[in-house]
Formats: sequence, C-alpha cells, structure tokens
Amino acid sequence: MQLIDGKLISEQIKAEIAQQVKQMTAEGKRPPHLAAILVGHDGGSETYVANKVRSCAQVGFQSTLIRYEADVTEAELLGRIAELNADDDVDGFIVQLPLPKHIDDQHIIQAIDPSKDVDGFHPVNIGKMMLGLPCFVSATPAGIMQLLRRYDIKTSGKHCVIIGRSNIVGKPMSMLMIQKTLPGDATVTVCHSRTSNLPEIVRQGDIVIAAIGSPEFVTADMVKEGAVVIDVGTTRVPDPASPRGWRLKGDVKFDEVAPKCSYISPVPGGVGPMTIVSLLTNTLQAATQRNR
Amino acid sequence: MQLIDGKLISEQIKAEIAQQVKQMTAEGKRPPHLAAILVGHDGGSETYVANKVRSCAQVGFQSTLIRYEADVTEAELLGRIAELNADDDVDGFIVQLPLPKHIDDQHIIQAIDPSKDVDGFHPVNIGKMMLGLPCFVSATPAGIMQLLRRYDIKTSGKHCVIIGRSNIVGKPMSMLMIQKTLPGDATVTVCHSRTSNLPEIVRQGDIVIAAIGSPEFVTADMVKEGAVVIDVGTTRVPDPASPRGWRLKGDVKFDEVAPKCSYISPVPGGVGPMTIVSLLTNTLQAATQRNR
Repeated sequence: MQLIDGKLISEQIKAEIAQQVKQMTAEGKRPPHLAAILVGHDGGSETYVANKVRSCAQVGFQSTLIRYEADVTEAELLGRIAELNADDDVDGFIVQLPLPKHIDDQHIIQAIDPSKDVDGFHPVNIGKMMLGLPCFVSATPAGIMQLLRRYDIKTSGKHCVIIGRSNIVGKPMSMLMIQKTLPGDATVTVCHSRTSNLPEIVRQGDIVIAAIGSPEFVTADMVKEGAVVIDVGTTRVPDPASPRGWRLKGDVKFDEVAPKCSYISPVPGGVGPMTIVSLLTNTLQAATQRNR
Repeated sequence: MQLIDGKLISEQIKAEIAQQVKQMTAEGKRPPHLAAILVGHDGGSETYVANKVRSCAQVGFQSTLIRYEADVTEAELLGRIAELNADDDVDGFIVQLPLPKHIDDQHIIQAIDPSKDVDGFHPVNIGKMMLGLPCFVSATPAGIMQLLRRYDIKTSGKHCVIIGRSNIVGKPMSMLMIQKTLPGDATVTVCHSRTSNLPEIVRQGDIVIAAIGSPEFVTADMVKEGAVVIDVGTTRVPDPASPRGWRLKGDVKFDEVAPKCSYISPVPGGVGPMTIVSLLTNTLQAATQRNR
C-alpha cells in the first residue's frame, strides 16, 4: 500500500509555480494576481480565504482580499465583479461561497468573466470541461487529477467508481475520468444515496473516489483488493483532544481499508492540500493566457 | 416486452406543440420562429434540415433556411450569427453540423446567444445542464428523457448503463440520469471502447442506452432479463432491397434482445423521430421565454 501524500505533492507544485513566477518577473512581467471576495465572517470561509491569501504569498503571487459585510446587496457585489472583470491588473478572482441567503450564487458566478473564473464554477467552464475543451477545472477535481498524474496511476480502461453526485466533485470527476485524455479514459460509475446495491458496485472499482461527506462510510468489505482509493470527505467531528475541539474525518474508514489498497489518500493530508494548489495553477494559467 | 414507439410519441408531442402555437396566435402573438443555417450540400445535412423545416410547418412555426456555399468564410458566418442573435423576430436558430474543415465548429457554436441556442450545444447550456439549471438540452438526450417520461419508466435508484461517451449522447445522458429530478436519480455507468469487461457491465443495467454507432453491437447475452433498452444507433448499412440502397441499423441486435426486455426502442422509429421534436420543444421554450 502506498500513501498518496497530497501535502508533499502540493509543496512540490507550489515550488514549481514559485519558480515560474520568478521567471515571469525576471522577464519584466508582473506576477500573477488573484483577488478574492469574502462576504461576512463565516468561520470556515475566513480560514479558507486566509489560506488562499497565504498560499499566494508563498508562490510570489499578488493577492487582494475584498471584504463585504453580510448585508451587502447583490447589486453591489455585481458592480464589484464588473470592475474586476475590467481590471487589467487582476488575472483571476473568486467569490468565496457560501453567500448570504439574499444573494443568488448563480447570479454572482455567471457574472464573472469566464477567462478570470479561476474557481471554474462558471457554466461555460463546466460545459467546456465536459466537452474536453481547454478551461478552468474547479479545485477539488483538478487536485484529484493532479494526484493521479503525479503518482502515475493507471486509469485507462479501469473502472472508476465515484460515490457522490455533487456539482463540485461527483459530476465533474465523472466527466474528467471518461475523457480520452490521461488520467482518464476510464469506465465510470457514479453512485449515490439512491443507489440500491452500493457496496456491490463500489467493490467493482479499480479506482474509488469517495465524495459523499459521510464519515467512514466506505468500509473494508466495500473495497476490492488492490484498489486505488481517493478520499474527498472532510467532515468535522468533535475531538476534545484537539485544541480546536474537532478534527477532520474522511469518507473512508482508513485503518481497515488501507491494507487492501494499492494506493490510498488520507484525510487530512490527501486531497485537501491539493485544492489550493489547483487555484494557484488556474491563476497562473489565467495570467499566462492574458499574454502579459 | 413493450415497444417504445418514438414515432407515435413524437406525433403526440407535435400535436401538443401545434395546439400551443394555435393558442399563442389566438392571443395575437406571432408563432415561434426557428432559423437554420446550412453550409454546403452534404446529403445527410440536406435531409436533416429539410425535415426540420417541414416539422416547423407541421406545428405552425415560422422557419427560415439560410444557405451558404461550402467556401463561406468563418467571418461571414459569424457576421450572420451576430445578426440572428440581434434579430427580435428569431426565437432560436441552429447551424447544421458538420461544417467545412476550414471553419472551427466551436467558434461558431460559442458565437450563438445561449438564449437562442435551441440545439443546446453552447458550453453555457451544457454547463447548466450538468448543474441541473434550466437550459436547452440537446436533441437526442432530450428525446430519450421524453421517451422515459412518456412511458413512465422507473429510473430512480436503477442502474443505467450508457455505452458510448460522445459529447452529444453519452456524456449528456449520464449527467441527466444522475440528476435528482425524474426521469433521473439513477446510478449511472458510462462504458466505451476502452472498457475492459463491457458485456459484464452492460448485464448489470436495468436501463441500457446504446450509443456507440456500431451496428448490432449489443447482443442478447449482454442484456439482463427485464431490462429497458434504448437504441441510439443509426448506422446506414447497404440494402439493395431499399430504393435508397441503404437502411438504418441500430446498436442493438433487436430480434434477439427484444424478447428479454421490459421495454425496447427500435431503429428506425425509436429515438430518431424524437430528436426533431426536441428541437421544436426547445424553440417553443425559447419563444415563450422571450415573453412576446
């Protein structure tokens, strides 16, 4: 069994990005610039955005954090998005989700210029991903593809079983894994809460991607000997021993599943660290495409 | 075994659309208007477009056929598309594919205003379909969904196996069948040329959608007793007995597969007649959304 070390890979990729930024600035170009809009003071969102800003600094990107109180109007946000779309000094930007209930996520997402949509949430980017055209792929699926690539995991002709059908993981992963490109070229099954014989189906998976958000859902009896298991779950469970009072639990019962696997990604330290790297990669790509 | 009669259902839906058009015109509104751009003189394309124009007439739509010779430039086509986008008298339009090699399909498709893209090929419509948002769904997948709906075929929790991963059938069908809406809510597997144990996987299908373009590929031994089989194949095979010299063959070996099925769609007369109906339905929807 080999551990898929997302922390290690993410550090490697960050170093590669930092190197490219150095080269850009050596050529007299300005570094890539990511802007992030944060609405309100949700604890999770604060942490995520702070991590993104810190990661930008690590690789030499410029970053701008734009804050609004939770009572900001949709019109105000849309106005700011229009400014960012038009701002030649901004290569890409994100609006941290979730947004307050009075704001329609899709109004906001669809207002972002797709060429600056480094979160890959705009329907145009999602549609292009499905068609196999160049686009920004969202953070988690892009991070998983990167892990498969860096560990040189064979996917062509393999049966990839995805548990979960969310818009941000299950659906895009299924579309990426059936493309003719590598990693990909796999037979893909998507199962979910309504699947009648789920364990039987998951047992067929040469590659299992668990993304249901149900802690330790995948047990040893559901996994084929030699399978590759990617755990996308990140549920916070109470843990008095932790200074934060909680710890992250994945969708896979790691201790019993790991011995059966050829490769397995842990939680934390697997897919998680890759998501910010995907955002950095997309921002670098946006900056490069803007031909500065 | 019940035959899924696409010809019958398509006639029913056309009658329903004609009824709605009558009501629109009775209210003093003009009927829906579909425009079609046809480039060159490809035999198949001529037939398809002629059928679309004739179907428009059948339901009381206005239609406009715009012809270009095969040496038209991309710029000329883009210019005409811009005019159609701006033309308030046109509710929806299509550009018949394939286009000559010197024209980039995606440049053309992405130039169409998504609100007039009744073929549902624009990445925005594809992305919205994947997200489960209102959109135009392309003809073949929409037609299959309509057949499942009209025959009240149970899909929730069923295992739907799709053979083929094309952009116009396999991929969109997989996304439609995993949505939480009905028909849908199914466990979905997409298999294709690289799938290692294809017959074994297809045998698991409660619903099998064959869309590989390989005549009589699906044989009786590959189909579970009681399965629903939808045949999307339309390969022209030589037939001296036919006045045209050819006839259509599906992807399913009908005679031996049919006795095992609860429902099966034939070729011809199954999915085929539904595709034009989907285009009419989308055009009616476009006209309605334009709030005339």
